[in-house]
Amino acid sequence: MTTLLKNGKVVNVFINTLQEANVLLDDSGTILGVGDYQEADTIVDCAGKILSPAFIDGHIHIESTMMTPLELAKVCMVHGTSAIVADPHEIANVAGLNGIRYMLEASEFLPMKVYFTLPSCVPATPLDESGATLLARDLEPFYSNSRVLGLAEVMNYPGVLRGEPKVLEKISSALAHGKVVNGHAPLLRGKDLDAYLSKGINDDHECSTFPEAKERIEKGQWVMIREGTSAHNLEGLIGLFEEPYCYRCLLVTDDKHPKDLLENGHIDAIIRKAVRLGEDPIIGIRMASLQAAQCFGLKGVGAIAPGYQGDILVLNSLEDVDVKDVYLHGRLVVKDKQALPFFARRENEWSRRALMDTIHIEKTRPEDFLVPKRPLPARIIDIIPGELLTNVLLQPLDFSKGNGIDVKNDILKVAVVERHRKTGHVGVGFIHGIGLKRGAIASSCSHDSHNVVAIGTSERDIAFAVNCVKKMGGGFIAVDSGHVLAELPLPLGGLLSEEKAEVLASQNEAVRKASQVLGAPKTIEPFMLMAFMSLSVIPHLKITTLGLVDVDRQALVPLYVED
Amino acid sequence: MTTLLKNGKVVNVFINTLQEANVLLDDSGTILGVGDYQEADTIVDCAGKILSPAFIDGHIHIESTMMTPLELAKVCMVHGTSAIVADPHEIANVAGLNGIRYMLEASEFLPMKVYFTLPSCVPATPLDESGATLLARDLEPFYSNSRVLGLAEVMNYPGVLRGEPKVLEKISSALAHGKVVNGHAPLLRGKDLDAYLSKGINDDHECSTFPEAKERIEKGQWVMIREGTSAHNLEGLIGLFEEPYCYRCLLVTDDKHPKDLLENGHIDAIIRKAVRLGEDPIIGIRMASLQAAQCFGLKGVGAIAPGYQGDILVLNSLEDVDVKDVYLHGRLVVKDKQALPFFARRENEWSRRALMDTIHIEKTRPEDFLVPKRPLPARIIDIIPGELLTNVLLQPLDFSKGNGIDVKNDILKVAVVERHRKTGHVGVGFIHGIGLKRGAIASSCSHDSHNVVAIGTSERDIAFAVNCVKKMGGGFIAVDSGHVLAELPLPLGGLLSEEKAEVLASQNEAVRKASQVLGAPKTIEPFMLMAFMSLSVIPHLKITTLGLVDVDRQALVPLYVED
Repeated sequence: MTTLLKNGKVVNVFINTLQEANVLLDDSGTILGVGDYQEADTIVDCAGKILSPAFIDGHIHIESTMMTPLELAKVCMVHGTSAIVADPHEIANVAGLNGIRYMLEASEFLPMKVYFTLPSCVPATPLDESGATLLARDLEPFYSNSRVLGLAEVMNYPGVLRGEPKVLEKISSALAHGKVVNGHAPLLRGKDLDAYLSKGINDDHECSTFPEAKERIEKGQWVMIREGTSAHNLEGLIGLFEEPYCYRCLLVTDDKHPKDLLENGHIDAIIRKAVRLGEDPIIGIRMASLQAAQCFGLKGVGAIAPGYQGDILVLNSLEDVDVKDVYLHGRLVVKDKQALPFFARRENEWSRRALMDTIHIEKTRPEDFLVPKRPLPARIIDIIPGELLTNVLLQPLDFSKGNGIDVKNDILKVAVVERHRKTGHVGVGFIHGIGLKRGAIASSCSHDSHNVVAIGTSERDIAFAVNCVKKMGGGFIAVDSGHVLAELPLPLGGLLSEEKAEVLASQNEAVRKASQVLGAPKTIEPFMLMAFMSLSVIPHLKITTLGLVDVDRQALVPLYVED
Repeated sequence: MTTLLKNGKVVNVFINTLQEANVLLDDSGTILGVGDYQEADTIVDCAGKILSPAFIDGHIHIESTMMTPLELAKVCMVHGTSAIVADPHEIANVAGLNGIRYMLEASEFLPMKVYFTLPSCVPATPLDESGATLLARDLEPFYSNSRVLGLAEVMNYPGVLRGEPKVLEKISSALAHGKVVNGHAPLLRGKDLDAYLSKGINDDHECSTFPEAKERIEKGQWVMIREGTSAHNLEGLIGLFEEPYCYRCLLVTDDKHPKDLLENGHIDAIIRKAVRLGEDPIIGIRMASLQAAQCFGLKGVGAIAPGYQGDILVLNSLEDVDVKDVYLHGRLVVKDKQALPFFARRENEWSRRALMDTIHIEKTRPEDFLVPKRPLPARIIDIIPGELLTNVLLQPLDFSKGNGIDVKNDILKVAVVERHRKTGHVGVGFIHGIGLKRGAIASSCSHDSHNVVAIGTSERDIAFAVNCVKKMGGGFIAVDSGHVLAELPLPLGGLLSEEKAEVLASQNEAVRKASQVLGAPKTIEPFMLMAFMSLSVIPHLKITTLGLVDVDRQALVPLYVED
């Protein structure tokens, strides 16, 4: 069965122009012709419309959307996404190979193609306790899957520079399989960058300035311009839209939250923003299609041309990248901005069940969160507004009203409870800048090991919140004096929900609102901030199940500063 | 062990500029850094020199050079070639899978990397008798070899357009293995081109005009700009050096003769010519390196950048592309224009021996080349000067002085003797335009089936020449009245010599001179012309072991025109 998209203007990414042409598609998946075609089984009038190749997101963590691949596909397709390259780093840190297997199975046979790069850093750091350890030999069998395109963001660049065998083995194994190795080395420059790249690192998505990105391109890397829910690099990298740099870039989101996806879109939103910043939409489209394919060595996708896969968007306007209809693999999958029903094979029930019930903790009691009283300066995590970086606040704790918590001065307790192996390990510290006046919030989503993290105004509230997270099998929760104000259950690995994007977005909104009821200012995202308080690669002070981490020294440090 | 190439200017193919930088190389094969490096085990001063990535020839028939891969590598390396993509079409038409096996083995472990695409047209036509028939299932096992990059020039585009299963199976098998499919469809345009491309054809090397090449690029193909010994397409395609077209082209030779290689060079010669035509050498270098790699999906080669393979040329000058030294895989292989000795594993003796003794014919006698006398107009092959196209001369034969040969009017006899299966099949016809006044020439190199072809002034000379070719196991020969004037033995499959390029070039010169002694004008290359007289895809009249071929009708036709 053939479809003819007639009378539209076609974005030709090989010569960066719009061409008047009809496009003949075959529902077996291929574009049959671009030109003066008049006949087909179905003829669609596209007069006044733009036909664009569909978009590929070169780097995203599905877990950041909290959606299953199926639900994510429904949302992304509406925004013109034909493929994503996902890094299952989070679920692998919780469930190891079972996490990767689930992702592969749950994303098979979707109209939106889900490719993977394999997580390179499980665990992310020895200063934390993750649910799994993956070595090169664990990852190796997955390279035979054609949807596995390589090794994901090699964050451990110090390890690469030091020549650590475990990291290098993962890199060389990926290369030996003819796969790509994604980079992740913010601010690395000059000879250190050379040393990192000399191991075969294909690309980077952590560039934030033009000079940094320019150096990457000159040194042969692909630059992934990242514009997600948290990180916004497009504006800083807008110079990359100029020749010759534009030929070595692609567009990625890295992380996207449900509400942001629903309200602002996906890759389309990045191109839209570039247009607002004065750039040519065709260059953006080229980056998001042909060049994303080139970056990963994908053949026969990323363009509207005979023999290429029939992944075509019908846009109402080029400048607004306003997606009306979407054809994937030659078939209409989105009509008038609505995803059409499709048959999706349910993932293997075994692989799904392997991700259920992953919050392995004993019921916690308030006394689990006590700290010794000492008249010494304590290391307090100090939130810097708008950043994931934290400062260290050094001051004695005030034990006059409780166990060191000082709500009036916004010195709250933060705790991280090990949840993978029921070790009973609990890291307890203090945090400034969250603003809760009562109750507590807790979550099973805390980078990168995803233990249960909680911030609260009392040990009782913290214990209750942690126990609630355990009870719902993972998720976000806001509690006050023994009552649940709002919750967002994430039963799959404590990271993913099986709800639709709309439900998730509203649950997310509910817990955010509840945190405001508890006193958090509207200017911060307490759950997102809390999720990054365990990420001991972002300076300066963080906390894991093992205690406080001095990120700069990459060492555990005690609560109190003793001379 | 590291080498530092110091004080040179580096061709950066990512941003199309020259950069002052030192290049640090590791003899394990990789470029470690590009920048302000000062120390290494070996330091080479490259002041005043240009450092360029080495060149890749995206399409060549090794058989056209008549050299073994080993001898060819020695010549090409001196001209800066790091890799070739060879199509063993000719040897496969003689020896089938044994021909492919020999090529793979004889090219293993050379400093110059020899990649292959598998011959798609064995036999080339049903109107001829080749030594083998290769189906998709015969080619399939070779795709697991990492040096096999795809399926070679799909010349049978009429078969593709007609949907012939045997052709389509070969294409889909290559694509299923993630390999590329090379095109070969001169002059195909518009909807026919679309239909051809819709099967997944990656590129074409048969474009001769800019509009034709432009259409290919707009439709997503890579265009291989061909400049070889016989076909010269650079001048006609020089417009492709402009943006955006230049980003979708590479440079290839297709066929190169030993003398041409020695005297004029290889890919370097094409860039040099482009510069003479006013183009930027850096664009030519980019086409010949990074883009050749991209066309075939080769990762980590084709540029001077950290992590890329250490394939670097030291040029005396950019404009002359004057190659002084060559580093391949991080090691010096050419110094001051001289190839350094290298260890090359000899091919398996079995695979070599399988190509020996392939001229399977009974001793021929003059009477084998007689034709019946008829008073009717005969179809005579009429050479068009400077072309491989032939016209049909329709006139009665003059039997007054012999068996239809009329030396005075340059009507000579041409014969093709089946040599693969000793069938005794002999095609006999007449040819105008070769100009021999006495004797005969013969050769085991006749496209595409490579039977023994001879042109002569008498049946006795023809029979002697054919017998001499048989005796030497294949090759070129010029004879006169029972004496050999000159010969060029090609003992491997009747197509390849094991001599060095210099010896081959002088042998080739000797047989050419001898043909002139026999009367051939200096303006033609009689052995090359003769080699194409069996190629029944080039209009209009050709001859095979089965008789005369009307190419336009794709049918065998009798010598005489009967009403």
